[in-house]
Amino acid sequence: MTLAPALKEYIHDNQDRFLRDIARLAAQPSVSATKDGVEECALLVKKMIEEIGGKAQLLRLDGAAPLVYGEVMRSGAAKTVLFYNHYDVQPVEPLELWKSPPFKPEIRDGRMYGRGVSDDKGHLVARLKLIESYLKVNGEPPCNIKFCFEGEEEVGSGHLDEYVAKNSELFKSDAVLWEYGRIDAEGRPVVSLGVKGMMYMELVVRTLNQDAHSMYAAALPNPVWRLVKLLNMIKDEHERILIPGWYERVKALAGDELKVLKEEPSEAQDLLTTYGAKGFAGGLSFEEARMALVSGPTANIAGILGGYTGPGSKTVLPAEVRCKMDFRLVPEQDPDELYARFSDFLSSNGFSDVKVERMTMEPAARTSYTSPWAQAAIRAAGQVFGVKPVIEISSPGTGPLYVFARRYNSDAVDLGFAPPDDAIHAPNENIRLDYLEKGMVWMGQTLENYAAGPGRKD
Amino acid sequence: MTLAPALKEYIHDNQDRFLRDIARLAAQPSVSATKDGVEECALLVKKMIEEIGGKAQLLRLDGAAPLVYGEVMRSGAAKTVLFYNHYDVQPVEPLELWKSPPFKPEIRDGRMYGRGVSDDKGHLVARLKLIESYLKVNGEPPCNIKFCFEGEEEVGSGHLDEYVAKNSELFKSDAVLWEYGRIDAEGRPVVSLGVKGMMYMELVVRTLNQDAHSMYAAALPNPVWRLVKLLNMIKDEHERILIPGWYERVKALAGDELKVLKEEPSEAQDLLTTYGAKGFAGGLSFEEARMALVSGPTANIAGILGGYTGPGSKTVLPAEVRCKMDFRLVPEQDPDELYARFSDFLSSNGFSDVKVERMTMEPAARTSYTSPWAQAAIRAAGQVFGVKPVIEISSPGTGPLYVFARRYNSDAVDLGFAPPDDAIHAPNENIRLDYLEKGMVWMGQTLENYAAGPGRKD
Repeated sequence: MTLAPALKEYIHDNQDRFLRDIARLAAQPSVSATKDGVEECALLVKKMIEEIGGKAQLLRLDGAAPLVYGEVMRSGAAKTVLFYNHYDVQPVEPLELWKSPPFKPEIRDGRMYGRGVSDDKGHLVARLKLIESYLKVNGEPPCNIKFCFEGEEEVGSGHLDEYVAKNSELFKSDAVLWEYGRIDAEGRPVVSLGVKGMMYMELVVRTLNQDAHSMYAAALPNPVWRLVKLLNMIKDEHERILIPGWYERVKALAGDELKVLKEEPSEAQDLLTTYGAKGFAGGLSFEEARMALVSGPTANIAGILGGYTGPGSKTVLPAEVRCKMDFRLVPEQDPDELYARFSDFLSSNGFSDVKVERMTMEPAARTSYTSPWAQAAIRAAGQVFGVKPVIEISSPGTGPLYVFARRYNSDAVDLGFAPPDDAIHAPNENIRLDYLEKGMVWMGQTLENYAAGPGRKD
Repeated sequence: MTLAPALKEYIHDNQDRFLRDIARLAAQPSVSATKDGVEECALLVKKMIEEIGGKAQLLRLDGAAPLVYGEVMRSGAAKTVLFYNHYDVQPVEPLELWKSPPFKPEIRDGRMYGRGVSDDKGHLVARLKLIESYLKVNGEPPCNIKFCFEGEEEVGSGHLDEYVAKNSELFKSDAVLWEYGRIDAEGRPVVSLGVKGMMYMELVVRTLNQDAHSMYAAALPNPVWRLVKLLNMIKDEHERILIPGWYERVKALAGDELKVLKEEPSEAQDLLTTYGAKGFAGGLSFEEARMALVSGPTANIAGILGGYTGPGSKTVLPAEVRCKMDFRLVPEQDPDELYARFSDFLSSNGFSDVKVERMTMEPAARTSYTSPWAQAAIRAAGQVFGVKPVIEISSPGTGPLYVFARRYNSDAVDLGFAPPDDAIHAPNENIRLDYLEKGMVWMGQTLENYAAGPGRKD
C-alpha cells in the first residue's frame, strides 16, 4: 500500500510553509557547547509540537538542557515509533567562512543555508510536519508517535540516559526513527542502521607556570613538543591506534553484513571530491576507507591551541597547550574501559602530568537490516524513490542510540533527506529544497509499512 | 675615575620623573606584529629625544616602521657610542592573565608593570635620561652619543639593515650599547656580549578544502596528525635538531670563552624556579642547559592552532593547522642556508605540501669579552655594584647586532637593569624601581671608562 494521494498532495502543497518553519527554528541559536539560546529553543520546539496538534512538555534535570517530550497517539494502535531528534546545534566557527549568517537561514540556488537546517532542526521540523500532514488529512498518524527532542546531542547527550531512565514509561517504544538521514550523490536514499560510539576528551599539557620568552627554549620544556611526542604515539601512519588493547573487543562484521557492505556504494570516494582531499587518511585504499567508515575505530584531533596564534610573529614559549580529541568506537568497545586504557597508556609512557578532561562517553549501537523496522524503511525507499536504497550497516557518526537500544531493545533506523554535501558541523550547512518533500513521503511510507507489517521479534 | 657626585645626585633626585616618562612611553601601544600604534610611538620617541636636548629625525622606508635617529655630540670627542633600542613591543595576549592593563603602567610593590616597561621602552627611556643628566650637569656626554631606535625589533628587524645601509655615515660608531641588560637573582649586573640569530617561520598544513564532520576522520586526512608527524621528525627527545646539516657550521666555544662560561653563574637554575618547570627541556643536565642557553641552537614551537578550540566539544575534522616556530641560531649558522636545508628536509620526507612562510631571518653575533668596550662595562660594574659582574658570552635571545657588527666592526654590549623575573614577552612584564637608578649609574660609568680608555683594536 502506498501513501494516500491526499496526503502526498498536502505535503506537496505546504512545502513553502514547511521551509519557513525550518528557517524559523534554525534562526533560534541553540549552541549546546556554549549553551547559547538552548533554553529559548526548547520553548520554541514545544510550541511547534503544540502547533501541529501534539501534546508536549519540557522535562528538566539539574544542569541539563531541557528535553522536549511530545506525542501524537493513534487510537488502538499496537505499535509506537519514537522520533529521536535534537534541537541543539554545533558552534558556528569559523564565522568568516559562512556566505550568509549562520542564524539567518537563506535560500540560494535551490538550497537553504544556515546552522542546523540539516543537522538536526531541518529533520526535526520535517518530521513534525509529516505528522501534521497525517493529522490534517487522516485525523491520526499510522501508529503511535512519540517525540524525544534533546538539547545536548552535539555535546555528547550527557543527560539523555538519565532523562529516559527517570521517565522510562514515557519513552517506551517499539522502534526509533533516528535523527537524520541522507540521500546519496546518485539520488539514492540511505537507510542507516547504526552509529559509532565516542570518547571525546581534552588533553592539557602544562610545563610552565607562565608563558616565557622563547629564548629560554634552550633550557625550559615546551608543552607543545611534549604533546607532539604523545600524539605521535597514539596512532601509526596507517591510522592504526597504538593504545594497548584498543581493538580487543572489536569484532569483524558478520558474513551477511560484510556482504551488504560490499554490495552497497560508499561515500568514501565522494568525500575525497567534496573535501578536496588528495587521498585517504594514512594512505588507506578505497576498500579500507569504506570499511573504516562503517566499522573502524578512529582517533581524531578536533582542535589544538597553544602559544601565540595571532598575526605576525611572537617569540614565546607557551606554558600550556590544549588538544581536543574524539575517538569513534564500534560495537562492544566500552568507553569507560577505553578511558582507563588511555590513562594507563599515559602513565606507562611517562605522561602522567597530562591532564585529561572527559567530555563525551557514548557506546556504539547497531540495528540488524533484517529487523521489521529496517525492512519497512528499505521497502518504502523502493516504493517512493523507485530504487533499491543504500543500506548502511552503520553510520560513521555517533549518537545516543544505545540509550533506547539497551533499555527497550528498540530497533532504530536513520532516514532523511540530507544531500551528501550538506556541510553539517561546518560553515554553510545546507539542505536541498527538492529533497525535503521526497524525504517526508519516504518517512510516511516507512511508518505505514511498519504499522501494517509484523511486530518486533521479541 | 668614578661618576661625579653631582651627576649621581641628579640621577637620584629625578627618579620619579624618569619613571613617569617610562610609563608615558609604555602607555603608547606599539605592537609591531599588528602595527598597532607604531607610528604614534615613533613620534613620541622623537619628541622625547628633543625634550632632553638631542637632535632627532624620523627615517622612513616603504612598508617599514619609522626608525628614530638621534644624537647628542661632545665637542672634539674621539669616540662615538651608538645606543641601539627599540620602541616596538610584543603582543599582549593572553590579556586575561595581566593583573593590570598592559598599556596602563601601574606601580605595585616596588615594581612597575606594563608592556614594554622593561623590553625595551624602560631601557630606552633610562638611556635618554642618562644623557639628559649629563647635559644638565656637565653640559655634554662623555663621548659622542647616537640613538638608533627602531620599531620592528619584535618582528625580526626586517628593515634595520636597509636603514643602516642607506644612512651608513649616520650610524657610524665605535661601540654599540645594546638594547637591554639584566641584574641577576643575586643582584649582580650582567654584561652580555652577543645574541643568537633566528629563523622564524609559520608552517601551514592543509589537507581539506573545508572543515569536515569528524565522523569522516575514518577516511579523510587530518592536517594536525600530519603536522604532528612532521614536528616529531624535527627534534629528538634530547633536544637535538634532526634536520640534516643543521649543526654543520656550529663551532664549539673557544677555550677562554668556555672558561668564562664555566666560571660564571647561569640563570638556568633560576629559570626552573621562575617558570615552575620540573626539569630542563629534553632531560638536559644543568651543565647542558647552561651551555645550551649560551651556545646551543634551538627549535621552539611558539604557537599552534587548528580546529575548534572554544569551550566544550565540537566534533570537527579541521581543514588546516598553523604552527609558528622559532629556531635560534649561533654564530656562523646562516639563516638562508638553514631555510634551504629545512625546505630540503620537507621535500625529502614527503612534506612538500606543507607551506612555509618566512618571517624572520637574522644571523647571530658576538663581541669578545676582551674588547675595550666590554672591559669598560666590566670594570664599571665593579665600580658601581662593588662586585664582579656576570659575563655572558652570549644572550639566549636574538637581536640585529649583526647589522652593526658586520658593517662597522663595532663591539657591542648589553647593559641594563632588568630583574630576572621581568616577564618580558609575557603577561605582567615589569621592572624593579630600585634597579633603575643603579642601572643608569652603571651605564654612565661604562661610558666614562670607555671614553677615557683605549680605542678599538682596528
